[in-house]
Amino acid sequence: MNVPSRHQTRPTIALAMGDPAGISPELTAKLAALEDVRREARLIVIGDRRLFEEGARIAGIAARAGTADELAFVDLPHPDPASVRRGVAAREGGLSALANYKHALSLACDGKANAVCFTPFNKQAMRLARPSYDDEIVYSAEVIGTTAPASEFNILGKLWNARVTSHIPLADVARSLSMERIHRALGLTDACMRGAGFARPRIAVAGLNPHAGDGGSFGREEIDVIQPAIEAGKAEGIAADGPFPADTVFLRATKGEFDAVLTMYHDQGQIAMKLMGFDKGVTLLGGFPFPICTPAHGTAYDIAGRGIASVTAAREALKLAIAMARQIMPSPAS
Amino acid sequence: MNVPSRHQTRPTIALAMGDPAGISPELTAKLAALEDVRREARLIVIGDRRLFEEGARIAGIAARAGTADELAFVDLPHPDPASVRRGVAAREGGLSALANYKHALSLACDGKANAVCFTPFNKQAMRLARPSYDDEIVYSAEVIGTTAPASEFNILGKLWNARVTSHIPLADVARSLSMERIHRALGLTDACMRGAGFARPRIAVAGLNPHAGDGGSFGREEIDVIQPAIEAGKAEGIAADGPFPADTVFLRATKGEFDAVLTMYHDQGQIAMKLMGFDKGVTLLGGFPFPICTPAHGTAYDIAGRGIASVTAAREALKLAIAMARQIMPSPAS
Repeated sequence: MNVPSRHQTRPTIALAMGDPAGISPELTAKLAALEDVRREARLIVIGDRRLFEEGARIAGIAARAGTADELAFVDLPHPDPASVRRGVAAREGGLSALANYKHALSLACDGKANAVCFTPFNKQAMRLARPSYDDEIVYSAEVIGTTAPASEFNILGKLWNARVTSHIPLADVARSLSMERIHRALGLTDACMRGAGFARPRIAVAGLNPHAGDGGSFGREEIDVIQPAIEAGKAEGIAADGPFPADTVFLRATKGEFDAVLTMYHDQGQIAMKLMGFDKGVTLLGGFPFPICTPAHGTAYDIAGRGIASVTAAREALKLAIAMARQIMPSPAS
Repeated sequence: MNVPSRHQTRPTIALAMGDPAGISPELTAKLAALEDVRREARLIVIGDRRLFEEGARIAGIAARAGTADELAFVDLPHPDPASVRRGVAAREGGLSALANYKHALSLACDGKANAVCFTPFNKQAMRLARPSYDDEIVYSAEVIGTTAPASEFNILGKLWNARVTSHIPLADVARSLSMERIHRALGLTDACMRGAGFARPRIAVAGLNPHAGDGGSFGREEIDVIQPAIEAGKAEGIAADGPFPADTVFLRATKGEFDAVLTMYHDQGQIAMKLMGFDKGVTLLGGFPFPICTPAHGTAYDIAGRGIASVTAAREALKLAIAMARQIMPSPAS
């Protein structure tokens, strides 16, 4: 028969609990309790079971950890819940988030999960736990053992934002751009978006300079490297267009002209996305063998433990992980 | 007596008609007919009288050019209205806009006007008329004959945006920043805003790098030049604060934390301002001996001649010119 059974198409998502001092335990418990998610996917929650159950109490829901098919739990008992000071970035919390996340990645690497989702980390705690901690992209590549190009994508509603460069000094941006690098980012964006269900994503490419250089008057990167990268992408069937002035490209995207904006540097996209409410959006780490998703917001130390944290962005992150996992799952035997 | 008469406090505004192929003639006629403006200021309209009257017809208002006290008109008869093709950037249109604007600046230089306002120019037409035309700041400085620091300010509602660098390649931004230059921009912003009626404007200064450098991890300009400039400004009584990450500073400003954001480069401010609707805002050329204001939007070639152009932003520009002119007018003899 050609219609696969419901069970066969349900992907498995490894859900790692993030920083214990913020809203991550309550969000993790909320995610695990979502009926629609449980219908669509099998979750493996990874974290300290006591913290998870406390999160469930805070969120006002019954903890459902452990029922074999509905929710698997990998209990990594650390840190002692009594030692967690809510709202304080601590080394123990960072160690816990790192261990949970690393385990989730390993499950996906071993084929035991089709995607990874995690609740927010606290960067300060991560660095207390691991002074060399840079960002999720670098850490994930190290754990997975890949050097393939990977990138962070920011997603708000239907609009995607990808970037060619990220956490580098602005002074280094221009010299970091090359036709090859932009072309690679364009290809990665196209591939990730197809993996998320876009048949042919329309990708606007931002220029680097004011007014996209105004025909070379204020910089030539648009002419020398960005335009050639767009042409190379087009030749491969990517629906790329540009380079467009950065100060109007997001306006055009919000009007529905594009599905994504590829920006040249961190703030070019982040200024726009945050103004548009990206804190309610989703971050995808794309380019790895499996999708990795997380809500764009942080650990919200100020409201931790009060049961008022919204699960909306975290649910969107989990749903994206499920949708992308489904696309890369091997077809069931027919 | 200490209360000056109404007549004495009315500033004179030189209002230059912009590009004739767009909405500037109709906007100029609309501005000249605004009752509230006529109560508050004496306007000197500069342009081709035939184009102005055609603009008034398009706008559906009676042309009131010429009544001595209410509205003075400097007729610079060029180009022949019959030769103007609406929606087409032309050399003749650029020459006309340049001549009108130059005359307005001269009136202000000669003390015959307290401020200058102009309806939109078309950059392409300006360059056809004058190939060396760069921007309004450079041209105005040349006509006025000043080398004092001047800058463009973008104003949307109550929020101001000023920038340290503007139309230069992004690759040159970092090396163009110095403590002195940022300090000067901060002082100019403070002075212009005080001139517009802010008692003590709260100015947020953006960082240059992602996350404002994250403590020096991604660039040191925040530590080496921006922070010292802020400290120098504070020591002079300027309510400056920062450096703040560029991707959240506008969010904070919109919540009322600041009156202005001083950005380090063109798109850092323009991405945010345009997303917030800056096309409905006002551009001020600040740092000259008198204020120069214009609506932020362009010539709107697509709707020229249809009588549907909104006068809102142009009225805001004119009102800012009036308010600032009033501050710099010599006190009437008592």
